Amino acid sequence: MKPLILISNDDGINSPGIQHLAIKLKQIAEIIVVAPDREQSAVGHSLTMNKPLRVIPFRKNGEFFGYAVNGTPADCVKIALTTLLPRKPDLVVSGINHGQNTAINILYSGTVSASTEGMLFGIRSIAFSVASHDWELEMDTASEYALKIVEKALEIEFPKDTFLNVNIPAVSKESIKGIKVTKVGNGYWKDFYVKRKDPFNRDYYWFSGEYFESDNQLINDDIAVKNNFVSVTPIRYQLTNFEELKLFEGFESENKQNNTN
Amino acid sequence: MKPLILISNDDGINSPGIQHLAIKLKQIAEIIVVAPDREQSAVGHSLTMNKPLRVIPFRKNGEFFGYAVNGTPADCVKIALTTLLPRKPDLVVSGINHGQNTAINILYSGTVSASTEGMLFGIRSIAFSVASHDWELEMDTASEYALKIVEKALEIEFPKDTFLNVNIPAVSKESIKGIKVTKVGNGYWKDFYVKRKDPFNRDYYWFSGEYFESDNQLINDDIAVKNNFVSVTPIRYQLTNFEELKLFEGFESENKQNNTN
Repeated sequence: MKPLILISNDDGINSPGIQHLAIKLKQIAEIIVVAPDREQSAVGHSLTMNKPLRVIPFRKNGEFFGYAVNGTPADCVKIALTTLLPRKPDLVVSGINHGQNTAINILYSGTVSASTEGMLFGIRSIAFSVASHDWELEMDTASEYALKIVEKALEIEFPKDTFLNVNIPAVSKESIKGIKVTKVGNGYWKDFYVKRKDPFNRDYYWFSGEYFESDNQLINDDIAVKNNFVSVTPIRYQLTNFEELKLFEGFESENKQNNTN
Repeated sequence: MKPLILISNDDGINSPGIQHLAIKLKQIAEIIVVAPDREQSAVGHSLTMNKPLRVIPFRKNGEFFGYAVNGTPADCVKIALTTLLPRKPDLVVSGINHGQNTAINILYSGTVSASTEGMLFGIRSIAFSVASHDWELEMDTASEYALKIVEKALEIEFPKDTFLNVNIPAVSKESIKGIKVTKVGNGYWKDFYVKRKDPFNRDYYWFSGEYFESDNQLINDDIAVKNNFVSVTPIRYQLTNFEELKLFEGFESENKQNNTN
């Protein structure tokens, strides 16, 4: 039996990235696409709880392509895994996102959050992004590398608290130097807001920023991609700062008035 | 000079939680409130990039209370720190959220994301939540504990990659046993969707779930709160699974056709 792969994204079900990924993965797997009905970039790991979700069959070029959901990437993966899929999939993939997801910026990424959900359900998961926002980009190179990585992923067990974040350079096939296992780099955005006046002379603010890379090691996701390597980062949410628990011990106290001791 | 504290939340600027926190912290600090103009629960760490933000002075009981922003908690902290505040604050606090934020669920929390932003700007940050969704809850106890913790926080340096996630039991002052430094617990939601028909006989799905705690150690955030301790967890995003980099080495490859080697 072919492996079953759930595919989602945050650019929306109509994006070229998810279509290329779906076509490529169909060569080796049964695939089911469940993705947002519109662009959801920078929604982070958000959930829709205060309104109902709709699940609408979506056609591309006259053929059934997948299910469009009026929610976030995390919503899509949750409803797919709990409600829509006939069985537990062998893999959850998300992407291919238009725009790279590296360094601490992955905290804001809907693409990454879809893989986080898969991992939380105990399923191998991979987030794919390509380092360009151009929807006209040639996507064969990126989707071929995605296929290569998916094939490898299906051969091994992942640690159950870990998923992969993959970033692919937006260059020609010949220019890609290879695949590198990396860590989350130290790059960061220095944010600022552009202040403008609307036609009614009222202020509004538009988010903007400038990106800084703080070092130059090839082991970092940003730097690997910049040097034309496909970057594969094992991500884990180890959220407690164990080392520093002691530092905060001074916060501990007992309530002398407590009447149950 | 009094310390300057930025206050935000995800329940919205009109929630009782943020008002109690603001009133209490005013006793020891100059405060500035910048918070979402409406409820933003489960927005996770999302950013508004595709539309402009508005910053509107907000009054409560006839007095200026703070700035309402048509965005997420992360937006509020970003625009406050880059654009609105007269100087770098000594502390960023968020809350007091109605509803606890513990275990892996903090990934979905807007309250926590506000503190994450503060930390990313290099400022001591604390997220406060109380373990009840009742907006009529007596909030004196919670805000007194928040004040206590803020006073301690102002006395020490935080590691620059770490912020505090505080959860306060929704019980009477006398019933609280004290403050405990904890770690992120293993509790998790088993999600499901309730499927219903709308008045037009079309399906819709509503998110729901059941909560499981997988152990019973007082050192875990959930269990501490359940046992009437105020839980203080040092959170850090150590995102790379370093230990397992080796496991994925088999993914590495070189592109033989690469023409720049």
